[in-house]
Amino acid sequence: MPRLTPEQRVAWLRLIRSENVGPRAFRDLVNHFGGASAALDALPTLARRGGRAIRVASRAEAEDEFAEVERLGARMIALGEADYPRALAAADGAPPLLTVAGDPSVFHRPAVGIVGARNASSAGRSFAARLAADLGGAGWVIASGLARGVDAAAHAASIESGTVAACAGGLDRIYPPEHADLARRIIEHGALVTEMPLGWQPRGRDFPRRNRIIAGMSLGVVIVEAATRSGSLITARLAAEIGREVMAAPGSPLDPRCEGSNALLRDGATFVTRAEHVLEALSPMVDRGPPEPKPISLAQAETAGFRPAEPAADERARVLELLGPAPAAVDEIVRQSGVDARGVQLVLLELELAGRLERMAGGRVALRQPDAWV
Amino acid sequence: MPRLTPEQRVAWLRLIRSENVGPRAFRDLVNHFGGASAALDALPTLARRGGRAIRVASRAEAEDEFAEVERLGARMIALGEADYPRALAAADGAPPLLTVAGDPSVFHRPAVGIVGARNASSAGRSFAARLAADLGGAGWVIASGLARGVDAAAHAASIESGTVAACAGGLDRIYPPEHADLARRIIEHGALVTEMPLGWQPRGRDFPRRNRIIAGMSLGVVIVEAATRSGSLITARLAAEIGREVMAAPGSPLDPRCEGSNALLRDGATFVTRAEHVLEALSPMVDRGPPEPKPISLAQAETAGFRPAEPAADERARVLELLGPAPAAVDEIVRQSGVDARGVQLVLLELELAGRLERMAGGRVALRQPDAWV
Repeated sequence: MPRLTPEQRVAWLRLIRSENVGPRAFRDLVNHFGGASAALDALPTLARRGGRAIRVASRAEAEDEFAEVERLGARMIALGEADYPRALAAADGAPPLLTVAGDPSVFHRPAVGIVGARNASSAGRSFAARLAADLGGAGWVIASGLARGVDAAAHAASIESGTVAACAGGLDRIYPPEHADLARRIIEHGALVTEMPLGWQPRGRDFPRRNRIIAGMSLGVVIVEAATRSGSLITARLAAEIGREVMAAPGSPLDPRCEGSNALLRDGATFVTRAEHVLEALSPMVDRGPPEPKPISLAQAETAGFRPAEPAADERARVLELLGPAPAAVDEIVRQSGVDARGVQLVLLELELAGRLERMAGGRVALRQPDAWV
Repeated sequence: MPRLTPEQRVAWLRLIRSENVGPRAFRDLVNHFGGASAALDALPTLARRGGRAIRVASRAEAEDEFAEVERLGARMIALGEADYPRALAAADGAPPLLTVAGDPSVFHRPAVGIVGARNASSAGRSFAARLAADLGGAGWVIASGLARGVDAAAHAASIESGTVAACAGGLDRIYPPEHADLARRIIEHGALVTEMPLGWQPRGRDFPRRNRIIAGMSLGVVIVEAATRSGSLITARLAAEIGREVMAAPGSPLDPRCEGSNALLRDGATFVTRAEHVLEALSPMVDRGPPEPKPISLAQAETAGFRPAEPAADERARVLELLGPAPAAVDEIVRQSGVDARGVQLVLLELELAGRLERMAGGRVALRQPDAWV
C-alpha cells in the first residue's frame, strides 16, 4: 500500500489543521486540486471568495506537531496507509490523519464497539465487561470511548485481547483524567487514537466527533445502558448511517439509563444478551471482508501543476442564489444551476471554508444563519 | 344467545367431570353424538372399546357441585353462553364449563394478560403494577394467574378497573393461600375463574392448564421477568399457538429471571416498556372484533335419538395399525386408512377415553407408551 512522502505528510497535516477544514472539506480539496499542496496554495483565495479570510496552518506548526507526537511515542497514520483502521477508511468523514499511541496491529483485526452510560448501573458495567471479554476471546478488538462507566468496563476487560480507545482530545489530554492509567494499560496490546492535535482539551462538541470514529472503526456497535438523548445514541445513529450493525442490550423499563437502549431495540436494533448474538450478527460482515474505502487519493496523490476548471462569475452567482437556510441536495443544485458538479463543489467549498456553509446528512447543504456566522 | 337448559347443564358437567374427558374430547364427543346426554350414554362403551373402563360422573355428583358452587356465591358459565369470556370461547381447548366468582361483566371487555416470575425483582413487580394500572385506565381488563410476584402485582394494581384471575384449583382452594384476601378484592370489580371442581387442590400439572385459560382470555400477553423453562413461557407459547399477541418487557442480561423474557424478545415478541406499546400492538385485534368462537354446539344442542355411523371392525383395526408412539397427523390417518373422518375421530376418542392416546399440537396424535398407561 502507498505511504505519504514526508513532504506530502506536512501538506496533509497543514491542510487538516487549517481553519474550517474538516475531513469532508479535506477530501473535496484534495480530490479537487489533485493533492494537499495544491489545495493549501488555493486555500486563502477560496476562503476569501467564500466571504472571509481563514487561518492556514504553517509548515513550522505542522513540523512541531510531528516532532511532539514522536516524542510522546506516538505516530500519525494517514488515510490510505496500510496501518489505518480498515473499517474507518470506509466511513464517511474519516479523519485524514489519525494520531495513534500503541500497537497498530489491532487495526488489522475486526473491531466491535461497546459504548454506554457514564453513570451505568453495576449490572451494566458487569455486562459490558463480560461481553468485551467474550468478544475479545473470540478474536475481536473492542472499540470504545474511554469514558466512565460502560466504556471503561469494556476497555478494562479487553486489555489483553486488544482494545482501542478513541479520544475526544489530544493524546496528552486524556479525558477523564482519572483514566490516565487505563489509557497506559490500553496501549500495551491496543491503541489510543484521535484526530485532534496534541494539547487539545476536549470540549462538548468533540465527543460526537469522537463517537464517529468509534462507529467508523467498528463493524457494529453494542449500546449498553443509554438514556434518551445520550452520546451513545449518537454513536448508534452514526453507525447506522454508515451501514454498520446497531445492537443493544436490554434493561429494566423503569431505569432511565436504559430508555435509549430499549428504544433502539424497539426500533429493530439487534437484541444482545450474549457474545454469540454479536458474533451471529457480525459474521456476515466479516465474511464480506472489510468495507470498501472511500475514494480518497493517496494514489491520485500530488499532481504537480494540476489546475481544475474554475466556475465563471455568473455560474458562481447562480449557485449562491440556489442556497438558503433550508437544506438543499447538492445534485439538485447542480441540475438547477446548470453548473458542472466540480464547479458547484468548488463554490460550496469556498463557502464552507469561510464558515458560511453547513453540511447535512444525505449530501445536503444549507447556508448558516447570518447571526451564526457574521 | 342460547343458554343450556338445567338438564343439559347437568349432562355437560357430568361429561366434563368424567375420567379422561378433557375439553377437546368433550368437544369431539358432543359434536359426534349431537349432545352431552347422548355422549354420556355412549361413554362406557367407547372407553371399553378403547381398552379399559372409566369412571363416569354421576347425576348426584353434578347436582352436588352446582349446589356448592351456588352456596359459595359463584356460578357456572357454559361455552357458548353470553357471559362466557369471548376470546376464550375462540381458543382451542376452551373449558366447556367455567366456574366464576365475581362480576362476569368483565368478560365483555377486551383483556390483556400480564404474567411473570413468582420471585420477580422489585423493579419487575413495580413495572407490572404500572403497566396494569395504565392498561386498566385505558379500559382493558387484566388477566393473570394469582401467583406470587408479577401476577399479584398486576392484579393488585387493577382491582378497581377490573382484573380476572385464572385459578389452577377449585375456587375454594385459593393458591397460594396468602392470596385469599387478594382474591376477595379481585371479585369486587372482576372475577376468579377456574375449570376445576370445588375442593380441587392444584398440583404441578394444573398450572400449565391454568395458563391456557389466561392466554385464551387475552388478546395478548405481556411477559414480565421469566426465567428459561418457566410457566410464563408456557403461557407465551400457548398464546402464540392460538394467534394472540406475545409481548415482553426487557430486563438485565445478567438477571436469570429475565432470560426467558429476553429470549422471547430476541425471537420477535413485541417490545414493551410502556402501556402505549401494548395498546399499539393490540388495537388492530380490537378493531377486528373478538375472535371467532370454535364450532361447538349449544345450537347443535341435544339431538334426541341421533346415532352416528360406527366404523366397522376392520376399519377400526386399520386406524389402530397406523398409530404408534411417533406423532401422526389425524388427516394423514384418515387418508391412509380410507376410513371416513368421523369414524377415525371416534376410534381416537375411544383410545383417548381409555387413556391410551396423547393429543399433540397441530392436530397430531400418538399412542402413549405402554409403561405410561398399563
